[in-house]
Parts: sequence; C-alpha cells; structure tokens
Amino acid sequence: MLVIGERINGMFKNVRAAITEQNKDAIVDLAKRQVAAGAQVLDVNVGPASDEPKKAMLWLVDAVQGAVDVPLSIDSAKLEVFEPALERCRVRPFINSTTGAKDKLDFFLPLAVKYDASVIALTIDEQGVPSTTEGRTDIAMRTLVAAMEHGLPTDRLYIDPITLPVKVAQDQCPRLMEALTQFRQLADPAPHTIIGLSNVSQRAQEKHLIDRTFLIMCMARGLDSAILDPLDKELVDALITAELLLNKQLYCDSYLEAYRC
Amino acid sequence: MLVIGERINGMFKNVRAAITEQNKDAIVDLAKRQVAAGAQVLDVNVGPASDEPKKAMLWLVDAVQGAVDVPLSIDSAKLEVFEPALERCRVRPFINSTTGAKDKLDFFLPLAVKYDASVIALTIDEQGVPSTTEGRTDIAMRTLVAAMEHGLPTDRLYIDPITLPVKVAQDQCPRLMEALTQFRQLADPAPHTIIGLSNVSQRAQEKHLIDRTFLIMCMARGLDSAILDPLDKELVDALITAELLLNKQLYCDSYLEAYRC
Repeated sequence: MLVIGERINGMFKNVRAAITEQNKDAIVDLAKRQVAAGAQVLDVNVGPASDEPKKAMLWLVDAVQGAVDVPLSIDSAKLEVFEPALERCRVRPFINSTTGAKDKLDFFLPLAVKYDASVIALTIDEQGVPSTTEGRTDIAMRTLVAAMEHGLPTDRLYIDPITLPVKVAQDQCPRLMEALTQFRQLADPAPHTIIGLSNVSQRAQEKHLIDRTFLIMCMARGLDSAILDPLDKELVDALITAELLLNKQLYCDSYLEAYRC
Repeated sequence: MLVIGERINGMFKNVRAAITEQNKDAIVDLAKRQVAAGAQVLDVNVGPASDEPKKAMLWLVDAVQGAVDVPLSIDSAKLEVFEPALERCRVRPFINSTTGAKDKLDFFLPLAVKYDASVIALTIDEQGVPSTTEGRTDIAMRTLVAAMEHGLPTDRLYIDPITLPVKVAQDQCPRLMEALTQFRQLADPAPHTIIGLSNVSQRAQEKHLIDRTFLIMCMARGLDSAILDPLDKELVDALITAELLLNKQLYCDSYLEAYRC
C-alpha cells in the first residue's frame, strides 16, 4: 500500500500560515513526522490563499525535499505551477492530478514523461463526475489508453475513482468500491488505484471511524494507494492490519511496531 | 448484515459455570445484553464440558427463549442434540453447523426442512479444509445443489468458507475473502455467506483490531452474516459504518445511535 501524506496543504490553517511566513521549521516538522508515521510520498499543495502560487510551491518543494528523501506529489489547481515544480524535484515526483478530459491528458501526460513522474488521474471528464460505476470505468479505460499513447508506463498511472462524501452522496460509496474491482480488470498487470480518503468523511461527525472503515473496505477491493493523514494512528493501525490480512505483510505478534520500523 | 451473537457458549468459563449451576439469571442477562447490542440471532452451545449435552442444551434453549424473541442457532458437536433442541425452538432456528460431507448433509438438510431451520454449512468435506479458494467454492457448490435436492430454500443456507487464524494460516485470509466473492456468483440470488469471526484472531495479540478489520474487509467482499461478539462495541461500530458505506443504512450524523434504536 502506497501511502501519500496529505498534511502539507495550504487548506490547513497552520500550513497556510507557515507558507505565508516562510516558516520552514513548521514544514520540515510536518514532513518528518509524516514520513516517520509511514508516508512514502508527501503531497504538497500551497492551497487557495497564495497570491504567487508558483513561487510558494517552489519554496514548499525546497523546504520539504531539504528535510526528507521521499517523492513529492505536486498538487495544484494551477496548471502553470506544475512544470517548474516538477523540474525542481530531486526524486521522481507525482502529478496530482489530471482528469480524463482530453485537454488535461494532453497537458499532463507529456509532462509526466518528460519529468519521469507518476500521474494521479481522476475519473472526471468534460461531462463531470460520473454517477455510475461504468462511467468511472469508461474514463479509466480512456485514460489508460491515453497513457499508453503518450508513452507513459502504465505502472506510473494511479486511477482515482473520485471519493464523494458519504454525508451527501452515500450511494456513490459502493459504486466507487465496485469501480476499484472493475479497474483491476482493465489491464494485466492492473493499473494502480488511489483515493483521496478524507473526502468520504467530509462534514460527517464520525470522521476517523468513517475514514478508516472506508479505507479498509477499499483495500479489500484491491485499492493499492491512498492520500491520507498518516498522523492518524488508528487509521494507520487499521491499514497495517488490512495489509496483514491480505497477506502482504508477515504476521508477528508485534506486527504494528514491525511495520513502523 | 445478520449478526449472530456468540457469547452463550460453554467454552466461556462463566457460561460453563452458569450451565453447571443452572444459573438462569446469568444466561438471561447474556441473552438480553447481546440482543440489546444488535444480535438478531443467538448462538447456543453447551460446550465440551457437559456430561449430558442434550439435557444441558434443552435447559439452555428454554432459558434463552424465555428471555428474548430472536431465533436461536443450535450449535453442538453432538448430532443427537439437534433434533430435540430444534423441536423445542419457538422461532425458526439455525443449525450450526453442517459440513459439505455427504453423510452430514444427508443428516442435517432433512432436519432443516422438517423444522423450518436455516443451515450454516462449512466448506469442509471428507478431505478436510481445502487450502485453496477453488476448493472452498467446489464444496459450496455441492452444498448448494444438495440443499436444492433436499428441498431447502437456498435463502436458508449460509455458507461459511472457514476462517483460520491469521497467526498460523495467514495465506488463507485473502483466499477466504476471494471465496466470498466467488460464492456470490454461484447462484442468483446469491447464497448467504457467514464467518465465525473470532477464529481469525485466535492467539493473536491485537484480537479486537484484527477482528474488526477482517469483518469489514469481508463485508466489502459481500459477506452478509457473521457469528461475533456483539458486546465488542468498537466491532459493532465498525460493522454499522461498513453498512453505511455499502449504502445499506441511511446516513445521519448520529447513525451509530440510530442503528441501535
């Protein structure tokens, strides 16, 4: 299970403040703590507040990769941010994210090839988020074909079936799980799958319980990557236990500690 | 999700003592607490200690159904216990359990038809527990066919793919999950599936975490019934949350409380 740490995001108040004040120590601390807790990749997103998103992103990239050696996942709503940030990464980065819309694929896939990046691809297209499993699978298939056409190895493609909040789109939760199963049948070897976990519990009261239950259910359906909060210890305990039960990590009585070594 | 409460079992010291001393209050308390916590069926098993298993079982059946109205699951290693116990049940009972061996099916299926019982059928046969997914599915198919031949409606058959401890048979955990998926494709409507949950964490240190993670993963693969400890609150919280995410229970902020009303 590939864990991408979600915490360095300007949506969080303390991160926004750290970016504004160029408080490198705060960012370094968050980077190191996430990696120590099991994150193998760190998402970096300056958030909506910055006036100079490109400058802020480059500062953030430098701050994080000065502290840890893991790949970064460059996450922005602004297209012009990506190329300079990817150029600055020392370790093969992730692009977070393209959609399945043709103009987005034509923009991001060549960039990914040029910078040896992996790509997170949301199953959204020109018509928006599909409400059915089949709609998600269609876009996933088109994205997979586009990746092959652009020369991106498909093991660098992470397909995201779009997690919607259980509070407002409950019927979409089982459809997303079913989509995970269908995606695995699109190619052999199967493409990677990924979710942005915390969306599922947005504005719900039992956030942590919902997050960890959904993560485990998706893992049982073949999910092999997630963007999540590695500092949520109970969430990571559940993730490790799910890996154990999938026989992807050997049992020992202290398997929770063993994973974290 | 059909929850069968596991607690009235002579394997537990306090229950064994209650049976030996004919302490009806202790059994009534355990029955009522399990039903209040969400059990829809109660397993009753006098355990290995009784000299007169038939007499002990009849006492237990009377004690439990004097206190609660839910169906009982008659659970014994002794064949001669079943018919008198089934005869005594006021509400359509469960037989726990037959295997897929021909002599067992020929014994239990006619009994189930005669007493309007549901049957829990383990995927074991004359050769023992299969080590593969396909072996489990073969026995499940034969059991399904036998049920039809004996005139047992297949919606009264609960197929159990045999939960083995992660500590000693870790590779069997994903095979069991895969079997759950395969069982659902054997017939339309799909046969019910069931697991004896606590086996998975036998002799493991992180019992509760392993139990609830495995339950949720199995639910994500289509499991619709389990024998478990309904007094484990975190386990039931996880179960309710999984039902929510499968869209089988409507979201409200207090969904955990709403389920228990």
